[in-house]
Amino acid sequence: MSLLVVGSIALDTIRMPDGKIHKDVAGGSCSYFIHSASFFSRVRVVGVVGEDFPKKYVEGFKARKADLAGLQILPGKTFQWHGTYHKDMNNRDTDALHFGVLGEFDPVLPAKYLDSRFIFLACSQPHLQAKVLDQVKGSPLAVIDTIEVYIKNDRKELDKVIRRCQGLIVNETEARMMTGGDNLAKCAEDLHRKYKLNFVVLKKGEHGGFLVDGNGTTPFPAFPLLKIADPTGAGDCFAGGFMGTLAKAGNADGKTLRQAVVNATAVASYACEGVGLSALTKATPAQVRARANAFVKMTRLG
Amino acid sequence: MSLLVVGSIALDTIRMPDGKIHKDVAGGSCSYFIHSASFFSRVRVVGVVGEDFPKKYVEGFKARKADLAGLQILPGKTFQWHGTYHKDMNNRDTDALHFGVLGEFDPVLPAKYLDSRFIFLACSQPHLQAKVLDQVKGSPLAVIDTIEVYIKNDRKELDKVIRRCQGLIVNETEARMMTGGDNLAKCAEDLHRKYKLNFVVLKKGEHGGFLVDGNGTTPFPAFPLLKIADPTGAGDCFAGGFMGTLAKAGNADGKTLRQAVVNATAVASYACEGVGLSALTKATPAQVRARANAFVKMTRLG
Repeated sequence: MSLLVVGSIALDTIRMPDGKIHKDVAGGSCSYFIHSASFFSRVRVVGVVGEDFPKKYVEGFKARKADLAGLQILPGKTFQWHGTYHKDMNNRDTDALHFGVLGEFDPVLPAKYLDSRFIFLACSQPHLQAKVLDQVKGSPLAVIDTIEVYIKNDRKELDKVIRRCQGLIVNETEARMMTGGDNLAKCAEDLHRKYKLNFVVLKKGEHGGFLVDGNGTTPFPAFPLLKIADPTGAGDCFAGGFMGTLAKAGNADGKTLRQAVVNATAVASYACEGVGLSALTKATPAQVRARANAFVKMTRLG
Repeated sequence: MSLLVVGSIALDTIRMPDGKIHKDVAGGSCSYFIHSASFFSRVRVVGVVGEDFPKKYVEGFKARKADLAGLQILPGKTFQWHGTYHKDMNNRDTDALHFGVLGEFDPVLPAKYLDSRFIFLACSQPHLQAKVLDQVKGSPLAVIDTIEVYIKNDRKELDKVIRRCQGLIVNETEARMMTGGDNLAKCAEDLHRKYKLNFVVLKKGEHGGFLVDGNGTTPFPAFPLLKIADPTGAGDCFAGGFMGTLAKAGNADGKTLRQAVVNATAVASYACEGVGLSALTKATPAQVRARANAFVKMTRLG
């Protein structure tokens, strides 16, 4: 079924622990989401870039059969994120953010997107996320992500839009901020109950995460990688693999949610194996399927 | 088959985040190991206490059908550990260590222990761990734990005794120190290969861990607990549940190792639900089995 993502498209500049710098790499939640979700489903995109956004990256989106009717190209510069990874690759500093045209982003959905059945609201200002939901018709399954700045500064608006969604995907820092708790298993359950959601996914990066749904809590590890080239976008790839799986299945029942965790883990692990989108672009559907199957097998304890 | 543990027995004083202090609680690796392994196997104990060690704790060991022929009672005071937990319960400070009679510990095995088939060398000075292996007859399956101070100050001796063992159980800090690496999946694999071990378990506390054996890497989460009363001894309980399962099965094949991870996770989670040994003492074998089964079910992704 139809899958829509609304989020950022960026040019990232990533400084690695060895000092190597990767400049103007395609990034932002939409870029990673498109390249991961497209293993499972076609993706409709609403996002904005400046006139400087390289054509090759747009061609890359097209190669994943993304529907770009909602891609806005505005005069000005594409959103930029500059970051530096620490030696252990689990921590990073944001060195600079240049919002450029993202500051004027108005998520207007093309008419043909209004019937989207699965919607991922990547992190963005809560009132823009609400505006997406205002436009779509019927009762799609909407899943939302957010980020510390909106939890801190725009909580009321954020709470309102979360209550309009069926699913929430957050990381451990966000979950702790939202609940005031320390125990992550409890944070995930509290969020599930508080917002009356169908499901919550709490991501812990290299440590996997929790899925909480009507069946209870499913703790899951990450796929063990012996080498991590660049974890940028792994969370957005997780969301892409997750939502792509729901859209492909056409439902979000217990079995599909668990398969979504598996596929999300597989694509997120590929994302970490190359800088930016490079490893994900090279991975074949057969490789992703094989890794997903390997993950199910290696985590089976009895 | 026969299971032997050699390690410390302590009186712990634990200060909780709310300021509450629990004084002279039975602790040390042996105490936790006995109370967790005994769900699966009888346990032979070699350890030392002072004349101040409360009789009720010895009775507690006997209630778990532990063989105490190797329990030495020396003139002087029992080893004491004093610690304070931080608010998030994942970090703690050691406030004081009073070694007492543990400083004179000489792990002499009673004659009837010499045929032990499964041996857990809880953390101790490497030359004492080696001395245990010197005494046992035949080719038992020996599993070793260690701690930062010996990795730092006694590495050569430690390496020698690890090479005489079949399995290694370490936590993330120890694994990183031993390998010089950051990536924990790789640390676990490196340790498995370097020491030519049958298996390595790398424990990550609330994040579960990795089992590495001839079949590859099995990442596993922890059992999700909504309330953590006291994580003291959880690692030793994990080791107890793990070794108890191997001893019960009489082997360490791939299937048994995975069941050992499950049982270890179940008993370690019980340990965290009460201060010291309190929750573990109350748990019934049926409850532990039910939790182990629930863990297998909740982690099954496909």
